[in-house]
Amino acid sequence: MKSLQVIKIGGNVIDDPQSLNSFVKNFVQVKGPKILVHGGGKKASSTAEAMGVEPKMWHGRRITDGPTLDIVTMVYAGLINKNLVARLQGDRCNALGLTGADGNTIQAVKRPVKQVDYGFAGDLNEQSVNRNFLATLLQNDICPVICAITHDKNGQLLNTNADTIATNIAIAMQNLYQTSLIFCFEKHGVLLDPDDEKSLIPEINWEDYQQYKSDQIIKDGMIPKLDNAFEAIRAGVASITIKHATNLNNERGTVLYPS
Amino acid sequence: MKSLQVIKIGGNVIDDPQSLNSFVKNFVQVKGPKILVHGGGKKASSTAEAMGVEPKMWHGRRITDGPTLDIVTMVYAGLINKNLVARLQGDRCNALGLTGADGNTIQAVKRPVKQVDYGFAGDLNEQSVNRNFLATLLQNDICPVICAITHDKNGQLLNTNADTIATNIAIAMQNLYQTSLIFCFEKHGVLLDPDDEKSLIPEINWEDYQQYKSDQIIKDGMIPKLDNAFEAIRAGVASITIKHATNLNNERGTVLYPS
Repeated sequence: MKSLQVIKIGGNVIDDPQSLNSFVKNFVQVKGPKILVHGGGKKASSTAEAMGVEPKMWHGRRITDGPTLDIVTMVYAGLINKNLVARLQGDRCNALGLTGADGNTIQAVKRPVKQVDYGFAGDLNEQSVNRNFLATLLQNDICPVICAITHDKNGQLLNTNADTIATNIAIAMQNLYQTSLIFCFEKHGVLLDPDDEKSLIPEINWEDYQQYKSDQIIKDGMIPKLDNAFEAIRAGVASITIKHATNLNNERGTVLYPS
Repeated sequence: MKSLQVIKIGGNVIDDPQSLNSFVKNFVQVKGPKILVHGGGKKASSTAEAMGVEPKMWHGRRITDGPTLDIVTMVYAGLINKNLVARLQGDRCNALGLTGADGNTIQAVKRPVKQVDYGFAGDLNEQSVNRNFLATLLQNDICPVICAITHDKNGQLLNTNADTIATNIAIAMQNLYQTSLIFCFEKHGVLLDPDDEKSLIPEINWEDYQQYKSDQIIKDGMIPKLDNAFEAIRAGVASITIKHATNLNNERGTVLYPS
């Protein structure tokens, strides 16, 4: 079975020109079939601000109203995605930018309104990822570059978390490829002390994770990231790593294990 | 030889929700392989205005400086392209949105600086269109939806006229398909009197065109459109029509002939 790398980069890599440059150089060196998933970065917020669209939040989570959806569509699918694709093409990687709507790559369901109406937020399920289309692209030596916008197959675009997209793609592709999932962010991996990069935890399993959570060593934004990652492990994704973007092509980072 | 329709819609179709709705319904009914090319519409200007980016013009032609390129990339490749793709997917057309950078579909050359520096404007040549990639998509029953952004294959996105893109695609594809090129705009075709839709000229050849120009019946914005169209005719494109978007699936419009 051929191997496939699903690599997710966060906003911090995109926001800083030097980090992005270095990431692009590293990414093109990754051999074999690969898929890039990217988040948004601060550009969506600054564009919203420039256009006078106020961010709507509820308990720290963004609510995607109509004007916000337009802005994330412009910034994620337009500005960031197309500049990334052009940069990769310039470095001889045959990149193709996609939202979930393009080729029906990822079909989501608008989040049901319960206590909160999250607006045009899309949730994924086991049928969401169009694995055959992605496989066709990979077989044609094309590198899909996927942003955090999906659709409902009924004409509506939806805003969807990029970590969730990367995880669902890795899970969906594992029947066709031996799939590795790599989350690149601004830290060297999961750290015992978030302010000390030397405190990297090189390996972590489900039991460790529960312990670290109850000791409050792992907290805040790392929890949804690791929940996502362990979901992929349980679903049988071969290898999952959390690392700094600069270490894409070396061993440094935190490797996750089921147990 | 299979037939292919290359259909270009202008900004006026995109700006008006009712026109766009009716166009989408008509477009999905077009049988066989098809490619949609779209322009920008007024949304780029209103977004620029909202963000405080002043349009730079020289003798009525737009100059694409850095901030303007960012805005057209956001609006054409993000907002307009992705909403069009989602709408088409909702109507069971397997649409895939592309800039020229995606899959290296269209490689342009930055316009050389002579008297005027047009900034990040891209010009096309005979090698610009990646016909094999487009053919692969069409063979997989995918409908490419292409916006007016190209790249230089060296990391730089470029702003390129949508009529020119449609013409170059039609010319490039005609060795593989019997290609028809259809320009949809806000008039019923070429008119003897621009204010009277009943004055439609149903057929026009190169000699007619020269006569109409010298009589100033055809002038202004119609001239670059018809120059483009006659270039495609000379290059052997099977059929070229200029028509109102609502007449996509009927005969009404102006058909161009070489002589």
